[in-house]
Amino acid sequence: MNDTIRISVDAMGGDRGPRVALEGARLFWSERKNTSFIFHGRQQELEPLLDEVPELRPISRIAHSDNVIAMDDKPSNALRKGRGNSSMWAALQSVKDGEADFAISGGNTGALMAMATFCLRPIEGISRPAIAAIWPTIRTDIIVLDVGATVGGDARQLCDFSILGAALARALFDQELPTIGLLNVGTEEVKGRDEVREAARILQKASGHGMVYHGFVEGDDLGKGTVDVVVTEGFTGNIALKTAEGTARQVGTYISQALKADMVSMLGAAIAGQAFQALRRKLDPRNINGGVFLGLNGVVIKSHGGTDEVGFKGALGLGYEMARNDVMTKIGEGVRDFPTLKGEAETAPQTETEAKPA
Amino acid sequence: MNDTIRISVDAMGGDRGPRVALEGARLFWSERKNTSFIFHGRQQELEPLLDEVPELRPISRIAHSDNVIAMDDKPSNALRKGRGNSSMWAALQSVKDGEADFAISGGNTGALMAMATFCLRPIEGISRPAIAAIWPTIRTDIIVLDVGATVGGDARQLCDFSILGAALARALFDQELPTIGLLNVGTEEVKGRDEVREAARILQKASGHGMVYHGFVEGDDLGKGTVDVVVTEGFTGNIALKTAEGTARQVGTYISQALKADMVSMLGAAIAGQAFQALRRKLDPRNINGGVFLGLNGVVIKSHGGTDEVGFKGALGLGYEMARNDVMTKIGEGVRDFPTLKGEAETAPQTETEAKPA
Repeated sequence: MNDTIRISVDAMGGDRGPRVALEGARLFWSERKNTSFIFHGRQQELEPLLDEVPELRPISRIAHSDNVIAMDDKPSNALRKGRGNSSMWAALQSVKDGEADFAISGGNTGALMAMATFCLRPIEGISRPAIAAIWPTIRTDIIVLDVGATVGGDARQLCDFSILGAALARALFDQELPTIGLLNVGTEEVKGRDEVREAARILQKASGHGMVYHGFVEGDDLGKGTVDVVVTEGFTGNIALKTAEGTARQVGTYISQALKADMVSMLGAAIAGQAFQALRRKLDPRNINGGVFLGLNGVVIKSHGGTDEVGFKGALGLGYEMARNDVMTKIGEGVRDFPTLKGEAETAPQTETEAKPA
Repeated sequence: MNDTIRISVDAMGGDRGPRVALEGARLFWSERKNTSFIFHGRQQELEPLLDEVPELRPISRIAHSDNVIAMDDKPSNALRKGRGNSSMWAALQSVKDGEADFAISGGNTGALMAMATFCLRPIEGISRPAIAAIWPTIRTDIIVLDVGATVGGDARQLCDFSILGAALARALFDQELPTIGLLNVGTEEVKGRDEVREAARILQKASGHGMVYHGFVEGDDLGKGTVDVVVTEGFTGNIALKTAEGTARQVGTYISQALKADMVSMLGAAIAGQAFQALRRKLDPRNINGGVFLGLNGVVIKSHGGTDEVGFKGALGLGYEMARNDVMTKIGEGVRDFPTLKGEAETAPQTETEAKPA
């Protein structure tokens, strides 16, 4: 990688059309000049939009693709019809061909994951890719994975996710030994799913190599930021992510309602306006936009389909930091440094679960 | 049941000692006079505490038990050592013997569930008990189950939880046809776990009998209150519950920080004091204290172990409403009205899952 971070953009992804991607790129570039862009999509649509952001012309290239993957295409259909000739596929291919440092798309998550897995392939030693979320907490941002790449996962996969999450924490947060927690329904060792308890046993042994295994964490440890990386399978992780988003919006609604309840409250709210702006910024989902696909031979960022240019800029920043801090090398180190862990997972005996209430 | 609601209290449960239970009972009784109490626990500890709330004397009885189940006892140990002679067991036995309309305990959840299942037994036609939470949303309170009785569950169990949740909604919220949603990672039919999609197929057919099946819901539908009853297995449900609690606390911390940031904000907050008190009441976990054990031959309420008398009073109110509105009869009707549903679940063929990203 040279000093310029080269970004491959699926400009056709997202609910709001390609303008979001180009405007987001302009916003991002105005702060980080050492970037260049390849915008994948329909040339006739993208040319006039690029004319609107002329400052990007010298560092941008439009790469024409005929097809666009729809937001409701099933992953298998998307792969069949869009392989080779869609903007999404082409954005990934640029990473594979070494002409971009990361790819970004606001398109259909399932289709993007299917295509990325097919195009970039899982890293040797990693069984499955995961989607990682950057999760704001009262302590600092943490990493949570998998938030929805695949449903279910055995102990081996949970351990792989730990390697990936630890590497991402080292890359993004410059933490030498990030702490890892396994999401579970209780902190007692008897509780939870078989595969989670089995993963705990393996991580305990591997603790100290590139990460420190903290133990089980519960749902409320997410907001507390108890550990740097929270590991779970994609079903639970996705529901936790959306539950947290929903709860934050719910409390936001309560705040608005409370402050509009009477004149005195409205006056107080007006006076405390600056504080509320700070709060609103903190709760603004655009500031934490972007899921990270981990475990593939290349960095892929999923921007939220419904976000605007500010959100897209945030997602670009995430990919930029990953590329700049060479997350791929750190993942490679993680895979190399955990040989015992992987051997363990492959040969580990299954243990009995007692059916116990949580 | 006569007009008085008779309450069996495990007075020794909870982290803060028996005073919480007796004070909570006094607070509750001051608002609802048609109640009576049996306080189970060590007579020598409870007598002086009951002397402190003399107004309860005429409607209270202390039933001595030697043993107390510790908060960290494993369920199997609790059952072995506490069966027959612990305050927790005795509180349940009072319900079984028909001398109380519901039992309440702030003790160890796992132990309480194990004992309740053993003492009261699952209702005929229901495969497993569940813990239901009353979940505040921006629309109205809804019911979420299972939030931690058991880890995992097949389509049959998810359908049973739907029967139980619908009955509770009819009893607590007076809804004739509550809407039911299955918690999943996406609303498309191809997504999610096998058992969830299978349960969806069965509930679709049974829709209209005591409930209306809405479809899949996602994590953010919890806070929105999209449906009256959200059904999931205990691992995911417990993590969703604690994630939501944690996020609400996290946002609460942000609010406090924002309003203490400078003098002007503090002034504004002081002026809007009433609005913030309303907000604080809304976010106060004591107001939504109490998990409901459903699916057993008797009503059991689990109060949070760390709550105070206000929280205990809230949990008493929950049990009171369940008993007064005869939730047991409504559950019986649900079990009787869903014969096709149960037959379906027992004979339903397993469908293939495509491994698809969420």
